[in-house]
Order: sequence, then structure tokens, then C-alpha cells
Amino acid sequence: MNQLDATFTALADPTRRAIIARLATGDATVNELALPFDMTLPGISKHLKVLERCGLISRTRRAQFRPCHLERPALDAAADWIEEARRVWAERFDQLDQHLRDIQREGASE
Amino acid sequence: MNQLDATFTALADPTRRAIIARLATGDATVNELALPFDMTLPGISKHLKVLERCGLISRTRRAQFRPCHLERPALDAAADWIEEARRVWAERFDQLDQHLRDIQREGASE
Repeated sequence: MNQLDATFTALADPTRRAIIARLATGDATVNELALPFDMTLPGISKHLKVLERCGLISRTRRAQFRPCHLERPALDAAADWIEEARRVWAERFDQLDQHLRDIQREGASE
Repeated sequence: MNQLDATFTALADPTRRAIIARLATGDATVNELALPFDMTLPGISKHLKVLERCGLISRTRRAQFRPCHLERPALDAAADWIEEARRVWAERFDQLDQHLRDIQREGASE
């Protein structure tokens, strides 16, 4: 599974998206993350492992509470991919728009 | 499965991402899409069904060749979700930056 596959798979779950949204506001421990979701710690830990594997979050190895930290580069890579598809799409409509204007101008000058 | 779950799941596959990238350049039939991937038509059709179900593409029902069309709103919704997480993250750093500048100013005026 490549990096983008793993990142989009990680984003395809509402609990994992909520964890990411929470971590965007600041680092948090597993206990802090488990609170709002009414989930067991093993349940949250499973989601965190998915997020950690694809590089969306990191966890300090040595700290006692191992706070989770959102990693922007993985989020950026997913955003960049979508952005590129949207750029290509927009470019096409710009070209179509230009083409229609060229036709209109040709029609007007005849 | 909600809309965003389905969209991110659809994006989590390299062939489906390649199909989306291709459709960003213009509508295409199943045959045209199958060509560059060296896949069977049923194989491609399976991917198209996933993309259609989450609303990332649409297909004309009546046309003989049923061209596939990229639907921007579903792509936008996925991009918007990531963008919001990045905005929250960036805001936090702006606040941190402001806080550090306030501390520096207070230190200088003492």
C-alpha cells in the first residue's frame, strides 16, 4: 500500500477524522482523545495505529503519556493530490472559456 | 457509510485516483479509461461503480457509450475537510507566534 493509499484510507473513517481535527488544535494523549468519543482505550489505540502507520500522526516514544502529534506533511500530500486534480479540471474550463470567446470574436469580426 | 467516508475510501486506490486524474482532463468512456490501465472492462467497471456510488463521477444513462464525468462537488467536499483541518492547525501556529511576540515585547519593555 503506498503512502497516499494509506492516508486516504485513514481519512475514510469518521472517528479518525475527528481525532485529526482534535489534534489540529494541539497535541493530546490517548486518554484525552478517548474522552469525547465514548470509546475504549483499545478502540482508540487501534485508530491511532492506523493514523501512525500512514504518517498522519506521530507519538513520542519516551514521554510517559506519549502525546499524539498531527503530522502536516501527510495531510499536505493528500490535499496536494486533490488540488492537482482540481487544477487540471479548472484549466480545462479556462481553455473552454477562451475557446468560446475566440469563436464569439471570430463571429463578431465576420 | 457517510459521504466523506465513501469519498476518501474511493480516493484510497491508485487506479481510482488515476481514473479521476484522467477525467479531470475531460469525460471518457469505459473503453477509453480501460486502455492505459491494462485492465479488463469488468475490472474498470468495478472501480467506476465505487466512484459513482460516492458521487465522484456520474454516467449518462441514455448515451450509447455512457461517458464518465468527474463531479467536482464530491472532490471539493474532500478537499474542504482537509483544508479546514489545515486552517485550524495554521491558526494555532499564528496564535503561538503572536504569543511569543507578546512575550518578547513585554521582556523588552521591562
